[in-house]
Amino acid sequence: MSESVFYAELPWPVAEARVRDGAPVFLPLGATEQHGRHMALNTDVVLPTSMAVRAAKRVGGLVLPALAYGNRSQPRTGGGPAFPGTLNITANTFSLLVRDILCDLYRQKVRRIVTVNGHYENVWPTIEGIELALDAIGRDRCGDLRIIRIDHWEMIRPATLARVFPNGYPGIELEHASVLETSMMLALRPELVDLSQALHDGPASFLPYDRYPKPPAEVPASGVLSLTEGSSAEKGEWLLKDCEDGIVDIVNREFFAQ
Amino acid sequence: MSESVFYAELPWPVAEARVRDGAPVFLPLGATEQHGRHMALNTDVVLPTSMAVRAAKRVGGLVLPALAYGNRSQPRTGGGPAFPGTLNITANTFSLLVRDILCDLYRQKVRRIVTVNGHYENVWPTIEGIELALDAIGRDRCGDLRIIRIDHWEMIRPATLARVFPNGYPGIELEHASVLETSMMLALRPELVDLSQALHDGPASFLPYDRYPKPPAEVPASGVLSLTEGSSAEKGEWLLKDCEDGIVDIVNREFFAQ
Amino acid sequence: MSESVFYAELPWPVAEARVRDGAPVFLPLGATEQHGRHMALNTDVVLPTSMAVRAAKRVGGLVLPALAYGNRSQPRTGGGPAFPGTLNITANTFSLLVRDILCDLYRQKVRRIVTVNGHYENVWPTIEGIELALDAIGRDRCGDLRIIRIDHWEMIRPATLARVFPNGYPGIELEHASVLETSMMLALRPELVDLSQALHDGPASFLPYDRYPKPPAEVPASGVLSLTEGSSAEKGEWLLKDCEDGIVDIVNREFFAQ
Amino acid sequence: MSESVFYAELPWPVAEARVRDGAPVFLPLGATEQHGRHMALNTDVVLPTSMAVRAAKRVGGLVLPALAYGNRSQPRTGGGPAFPGTLNITANTFSLLVRDILCDLYRQKVRRIVTVNGHYENVWPTIEGIELALDAIGRDRCGDLRIIRIDHWEMIRPATLARVFPNGYPGIELEHASVLETSMMLALRPELVDLSQALHDGPASFLPYDRYPKPPAEVPASGVLSLTEGSSAEKGEWLLKDCEDGIVDIVNREFFAQ
Amino acid sequence: MSESVFYAELPWPVAEARVRDGAPVFLPLGATEQHGRHMALNTDVVLPTSMAVRAAKRVGGLVLPALAYGNRSQPRTGGGPAFPGTLNITANTFSLLVRDILCDLYRQKVRRIVTVNGHYENVWPTIEGIELALDAIGRDRCGDLRIIRIDHWEMIRPATLARVFPNGYPGIELEHASVLETSMMLALRPELVDLSQALHDGPASFLPYDRYPKPPAEVPASGVLSLTEGSSAEKGEWLLKDCEDGIVDIVNREFFAQ
Amino acid sequence: MSESVFYAELPWPVAEARVRDGAPVFLPLGATEQHGRHMALNTDVVLPTSMAVRAAKRVGGLVLPALAYGNRSQPRTGGGPAFPGTLNITANTFSLLVRDILCDLYRQKVRRIVTVNGHYENVWPTIEGIELALDAIGRDRCGDLRIIRIDHWEMIRPATLARVFPNGYPGIELEHASVLETSMMLALRPELVDLSQALHDGPASFLPYDRYPKPPAEVPASGVLSLTEGSSAEKGEWLLKDCEDGIVDIVNREFFAQ
Repeated sequence: MSESVFYAELPWPVAEARVRDGAPVFLPLGATEQHGRHMALNTDVVLPTSMAVRAAKRVGGLVLPALAYGNRSQPRTGGGPAFPGTLNITANTFSLLVRDILCDLYRQKVRRIVTVNGHYENVWPTIEGIELALDAIGRDRCGDLRIIRIDHWEMIRPATLARVFPNGYPGIELEHASVLETSMMLALRPELVDLSQALHDGPASFLPYDRYPKPPAEVPASGVLSLTEGSSAEKGEWLLKDCEDGIVDIVNREFFAQ
Repeated sequence: MSESVFYAELPWPVAEARVRDGAPVFLPLGATEQHGRHMALNTDVVLPTSMAVRAAKRVGGLVLPALAYGNRSQPRTGGGPAFPGTLNITANTFSLLVRDILCDLYRQKVRRIVTVNGHYENVWPTIEGIELALDAIGRDRCGDLRIIRIDHWEMIRPATLARVFPNGYPGIELEHASVLETSMMLALRPELVDLSQALHDGPASFLPYDRYPKPPAEVPASGVLSLTEGSSAEKGEWLLKDCEDGIVDIVNREFFAQ
Repeated sequence: MSESVFYAELPWPVAEARVRDGAPVFLPLGATEQHGRHMALNTDVVLPTSMAVRAAKRVGGLVLPALAYGNRSQPRTGGGPAFPGTLNITANTFSLLVRDILCDLYRQKVRRIVTVNGHYENVWPTIEGIELALDAIGRDRCGDLRIIRIDHWEMIRPATLARVFPNGYPGIELEHASVLETSMMLALRPELVDLSQALHDGPASFLPYDRYPKPPAEVPASGVLSLTEGSSAEKGEWLLKDCEDGIVDIVNREFFAQ
Repeated sequence: MSESVFYAELPWPVAEARVRDGAPVFLPLGATEQHGRHMALNTDVVLPTSMAVRAAKRVGGLVLPALAYGNRSQPRTGGGPAFPGTLNITANTFSLLVRDILCDLYRQKVRRIVTVNGHYENVWPTIEGIELALDAIGRDRCGDLRIIRIDHWEMIRPATLARVFPNGYPGIELEHASVLETSMMLALRPELVDLSQALHDGPASFLPYDRYPKPPAEVPASGVLSLTEGSSAEKGEWLLKDCEDGIVDIVNREFFAQ
Repeated sequence: MSESVFYAELPWPVAEARVRDGAPVFLPLGATEQHGRHMALNTDVVLPTSMAVRAAKRVGGLVLPALAYGNRSQPRTGGGPAFPGTLNITANTFSLLVRDILCDLYRQKVRRIVTVNGHYENVWPTIEGIELALDAIGRDRCGDLRIIRIDHWEMIRPATLARVFPNGYPGIELEHASVLETSMMLALRPELVDLSQALHDGPASFLPYDRYPKPPAEVPASGVLSLTEGSSAEKGEWLLKDCEDGIVDIVNREFFAQ
Repeated sequence: MSESVFYAELPWPVAEARVRDGAPVFLPLGATEQHGRHMALNTDVVLPTSMAVRAAKRVGGLVLPALAYGNRSQPRTGGGPAFPGTLNITANTFSLLVRDILCDLYRQKVRRIVTVNGHYENVWPTIEGIELALDAIGRDRCGDLRIIRIDHWEMIRPATLARVFPNGYPGIELEHASVLETSMMLALRPELVDLSQALHDGPASFLPYDRYPKPPAEVPASGVLSLTEGSSAEKGEWLLKDCEDGIVDIVNREFFAQ
């Protein structure tokens, strides 16, 4: 078990030694959220965890247990908090969870931390959780602590988008449960995708504002915000390679560069 | 005073009557945040307040006191929490403030509420504040309460952007303290802009990730994330007109349409 | 704009320089609360802000954006939380807001802070907010931080009260929306006062205890706790002069005395 | 034990029956706070508890365990949070404690509640605790719940003050650990008073503002804010009688009047 | 009064001197909770307070006011939160209360603290309160602060249990309001016990899991989880002696041993 | 994927249908905590998750993502919060996480919930999380919601303990990382156990109280609180069978019995 890339699969003496030797520690941030009729609810957990594992293997890092419950899904970005299947937690709870884990990693002498996020709505409560952890640790006592926050979709290169979408990229804002995520899931966990269920009732066309308590009616009934046509495991591998490379580059630049 | 568009400039019997008659109530959400060497720290308050006033006058609405302290500025979108001049509050405090105000508006029988936001980092804690208010009120007891959440930059039409940027729009992500905001401030409060101080050390080129506690060095020293060249009061009026019209259209569709 | 007494009307380099040079920073604390049929809901914002501006101009200080939403109004001191027009926030939210602003002022190297309060119910959550800020900063690491907390009604000299009330002062506890506040508003913002609407149904006579959830019936229907007769802009100027002088004296004693 | 006036000295079947029969329930609110060199730290607990007991016996009520830890003492009203001996809790904790107890009393079907407060700094967090409890219970579902909030010093009649202070009443603001409290303690718990230790270094003369983190130097070293001369058990009985009568009158008016 | 073992019965100069001289300070943690038809609701307050007093007298310590409101009673350990008579507070409030008191004791320079707990459900929120206090104080700045957390039932020696239960000890899990607590109450406060009301409807036989919102029906109607037969003041004294001795031994080992 | 026992491996239409048809939903509660030199840090996650999966398959249930970060480890039950490798979160965060998930399950119309806990320190914050969820939902509006809380070690039958420990059971309080957990891990994930690393420096002998900030020195250096000798996969299967059967029995009794 001492060879595992998963922090929690190690016995404590190995975990302690790896941290002491400077292993970067990756925290995947996900959600349990609808991803269309054709894909499993754990898409936002599988993707960042897999990317973290691939990157960790290349940089000698360790991967922590993923956060599987994400900040409230919103209509324009994931179908909304009331969509069937989706399980949300509040922003404050998510931030406190991130804060607590970061504070305890710091106490365990971890100084190189990378969060890899796969759920758009997690962006801001993650930032808040990091800020709260720095407040708690003391910004003037952080020493060499360095926390890197990555959203995986930022790692995809324009050239790859051009290959994936030869007819033009519809934009990240419509990419929930669409070609990018579907392709990567086909590459990683094909048994969790059933393209025959990918009803083509998108792409969604949202009004440029939010309404509460009832969101506007524009969320497609399928939960797919854009098209799934053209998804393939091969494309998924191109995308995953970008994410892996992007994370590795950042880790090398931030933690190991002279 | 009974003719004022500002809720707080009314005596209570008038405020009560206006609410009873269905006046939409606008809550501007801003920040006290650096906006370059050439512009005042209150830019994110002035813009949404002015837009709310213009829209309120057309739809018979009222404008509440703006929230002048915003959620923590971030390096890639506003220079970051440590930039001189910027005063931040935490996401949780911001959300609780929004929650409390919405709950009390509800208790005062206000059922038509529009938040107009001018500070990017407020987006998510505003959503959380609205969700918390709905939790507190009880989602099955909201009755005809309807809350509209608008970010003002979403109101600008593509045609206007094309006019403002004849050489191409650099993208909203670089627009902090740049041509859009500067032009609108020139139109509204020219005494709060000094273009001679607009040092051209942008545009910023950010790495696609965040780093804590010290952000990457890419924030331009001036705090301007993009260029200010080409800013003018005339362009500002075009933009403000879009925002005013956009808000009015939404209010009419949501509150007064059959 | 660099000459403005308002912190938020400055560009960041000027704000930074003014703070570095020791400018005292004033934070007005107000409320949006009924003030009788004859006066605007923003009375508790206008008064402390105006006093802070007058004092700041004399001592080279800066005035921050006022907090326009106050701690829950209470029946015996402001008509109560259920009075039409009044918008309350909770004590905890108010305290957190004060805490966050003070902590960020400290981070921005501000060491001379004056809160000027115009809403009685803010007294205790302001104290709590200050204590929480000191807890967060660390009481042994505050250095030369000094926070002064002023309630404006404490600045009025007995001699002035005697002039304003030649027939005897009815006591501060009945002064909500009455002669003192009305006179000062007449001096500062006469368009926000309409004495013809000042129904004389006071003075209120309260039982010496509180009752919940429904307060006793003694709150006058007008919201005026005492009399408005005899209010005048001239008297308002006497009172404002006392407040201005009182604040200036305190600032000089605390921050600039040898 | 079934005859005890103390709720917590009853076995549950008797407590349940007494509540079902409409017994008013009294919650004394105190503090552990310095009260001069001559008096015990529990003065603010002994006084409201004793008054509650006397009143409860006359109206068939029950007395709950007192809250012995009060909201932060302040320099102008009790010597301040840093005075030796004083143990403070935060306003938020105090409010949550009041909220929790009231919610559970409600769940236990108690509908007649009286808080009797003996510590000035508890006033506002008690109000907040009551408001939070009403929020949690639901203001439209409170039914016949009625909560009375009494500060004991409000119960003293002007005639009694005139008897106690034949040379004129110095005002409640200086009465911490002074003649009123000392006399009542002499009447109730003479072994907790040692007048030979009552150094006459008062009365305190406070500046009309607060300063943080270090309060102004005006707190008398003894902690006595005024004079103790003239304190006597006889006067204490007069005062206690006023408080007892005042509470009984309120209870009768609020709970038992037709 | 200066000889009292109760901290709050001292005037501040004596309390300050005693703390400076190293007196251990005891904080009793109790509850207001049903203890059968035969015993008062304050059993969990009386027992730890009495033990703390006995121990404090032997080691020169002081006893703080007990916390009389405990964390939510649970069905398997105390009858549950809905049992008549029981008054619960939330875990978070209990923890914050413990945190605040410990922080203020630390500020008052108390370095030897002993919590003596008499209510099973308080165990975990007390631990959390202690951890939160250490977080707030700063674990690297605690100096010689030492906090001892004792549950009184852990102090009873096996030999004593054998004497009390000559036919075998039924186990601590059934001991709520049963022979141990009843005997100690008979020794300490016999007027708060009425054995004639001790209906023998126990012992309880619980299923090994919890159910919410309605607990399983196994809580005996009397609230007695086991038998009261065989309770006596004499046995109570044996038990109290064990507790007193146990606490004294721990205090000597932890605070006064070389 | 529609056949998976894991909720998050389903697409939303299947999850929705399964819930509508009454599938019990299991939430495993674990920790990332040292479990001796011979076993992985995820032991408290693997065990309850595996048991939930086995039981869910028999009763037609679904298993949610496990909570992998547990409430603060304590010295007497898991080595303590400072043990290398252990990652703790606070009780409040853990409770809020449980509350949020339960509230959202309720909103998703799940009415049959079973928490299966594998980490002793989670017991009380789980109870609090459940109570907070019931408070938020409204105890009078829960309808047929039923939440079962199971600690897996309570499922082991005395007869099985007798078989596992032919020389006598040392008691659950010493069972952290010892024969019970080791045997079950050997049965489930043998690659995460290395018995050659099971140093025999136990069993631990704890003093009957807690000390903070530094715990007593009695935690064995290995983190094993008792012995691992005699652990085997075969015994693990006996124990797992008990747990599986116990959970199935409870589910049938509570959810499916007439």
